[in-house]
Amino acid sequence: MHRVKVRVVEDALDANNTIARANRDDFDRNGVTVVNIMSAPGAGKTTLLERVLRDGVEGLRVGVLEGDVQGSLDADRLAHLHIPVTQLNTDSGFGGECHLDANMIRSALPTLPLADIDLLVVENVGNLVCPAEFRIGEDARMMVSSVAEGDDKPLKYPLMFRACELVVLNKMDLLPHVDFDVDRFRHFLDQVHPGVTVLETSARTGEGIEELRRWFASLPDRAVAPA
Amino acid sequence: MHRVKVRVVEDALDANNTIARANRDDFDRNGVTVVNIMSAPGAGKTTLLERVLRDGVEGLRVGVLEGDVQGSLDADRLAHLHIPVTQLNTDSGFGGECHLDANMIRSALPTLPLADIDLLVVENVGNLVCPAEFRIGEDARMMVSSVAEGDDKPLKYPLMFRACELVVLNKMDLLPHVDFDVDRFRHFLDQVHPGVTVLETSARTGEGIEELRRWFASLPDRAVAPA
Repeated sequence: MHRVKVRVVEDALDANNTIARANRDDFDRNGVTVVNIMSAPGAGKTTLLERVLRDGVEGLRVGVLEGDVQGSLDADRLAHLHIPVTQLNTDSGFGGECHLDANMIRSALPTLPLADIDLLVVENVGNLVCPAEFRIGEDARMMVSSVAEGDDKPLKYPLMFRACELVVLNKMDLLPHVDFDVDRFRHFLDQVHPGVTVLETSARTGEGIEELRRWFASLPDRAVAPA
Repeated sequence: MHRVKVRVVEDALDANNTIARANRDDFDRNGVTVVNIMSAPGAGKTTLLERVLRDGVEGLRVGVLEGDVQGSLDADRLAHLHIPVTQLNTDSGFGGECHLDANMIRSALPTLPLADIDLLVVENVGNLVCPAEFRIGEDARMMVSSVAEGDDKPLKYPLMFRACELVVLNKMDLLPHVDFDVDRFRHFLDQVHPGVTVLETSARTGEGIEELRRWFASLPDRAVAPA
C-alpha cells in the first residue's frame, strides 16, 4: 500500500520538477529572480513583506505573487505598496490545495509583469509540510518561523527547515511572553540543516528588517536552489 | 486539467470516507468516542491537552493518538500523564503526509487499547488545510487557533473553521502583545460557520481549561459528526 503511494507521489513530484524547470527558464529569460516564502499560517509573512518592501529593495523592481487557498486578504494588504501584486487561489472545486505547485505558477505566468520586475516574491500557502516538497521554479527559498509556534518546530517539520536557504525567526518581540528558547531552536535547526543562515526579526520593533532587506537585495547575485 | 484533478481528489476522498465509516463502526463497537483535534503548527494543541488531561476528564478513560510527520516529541510530552499514548508518523519514504487520513488511523487500530478507553483524542498534523478534508471516523472535530496567528484566519482557511464543532481560541494570555481583535475574529468566524461554539483558552493562565474539560466530558453523550 505504502509502496504504491510513494510511487504515485514520486511521479507527481517528477512532473512538478519538469514544470518548475520550465518556469525557471522563463524567469531566467526575463531576468527575474524568484524567492519562495513559506511558513505556518500566521507566522507573519505578509507583515514582514510589508515592512521590507515599504521602502523598496535597493536597485530592484519587486513584484509579489500571493498564494492562498481562498480570498485576496494578503494581496489587498500589500496594495498600498504600489507594486505589482497578483493573487493566486488554490481552491478549485474541493477544499483547496495546501501548497503552490509549479503548474499553478505556470498558469499565473501570463498575468505576471515579468518584463517590469527584477525580483518576484512568492508568498506560499501557510503550511509547514507540502510547500517544501513542490519546487515552483524559484532561485531561493526562505521560511519564516514565529517564536509563538514553539522551539521544537525544526524537529517536527524537518523537510521544511532543510529545504530553505534562509530561516527567519519572527515575532522576536513576543519572546518575553512565550516559552521559547532561542538556543534550543538553533540547536534543533542545526540537527536538520547545519549552517543555514538565520535572521531574527520583528515587524513590530523593526529588528532584523534591514538585514532581511539586504538578503532580498543580494538574491539576483546568487542562483542558489536548483529548479 | 483542473477538472481531472478534482475528479481524482473526489475519488480519494470517497475512498477515505469508506474507510472512515469502517473505523467509526469499530470505535462504536468498542464504545469509544473519538475527537479529532486540528490546528496550525504551534497553536498549542499538545499543551492544551496536557492541561485538560492532567486532572482527568470526569468519568472517562482517555487515550491519545498523536499524529506527526516525524518524531515522537508530542507523545513524549504526554508520557507523564500515565494514559495510553500512541504515536503515528506520516512520513513513509517521501516528505511526509500533511494530515492524517482514515487509512492511517485504520493501520493504527490494532495498537490502540480500544477496550480500555472511553474517549480517544486524536491530535492531527499541524495544518489548516488538508486535515479538514479527511474524515478519520471521528465523532467530533475541534480546531485550535492561536491569537498569535492573526484574526483573519477564518477567512483564509474557511473549510477548517467550517468542518469543526468547536473552535478554541488559544493563547489568550498573548492578547495584549499582538494585533488581534477578538470581535473581528468572531465576526469572520460567523461568516464561515455561524453559531459554532467558541471557547477562549490559555494553558498559561488556565483560562477556559475547565470549560474545555467539560466539553470533552460531554462528547460521549452526543454523536455529532457523520463518519
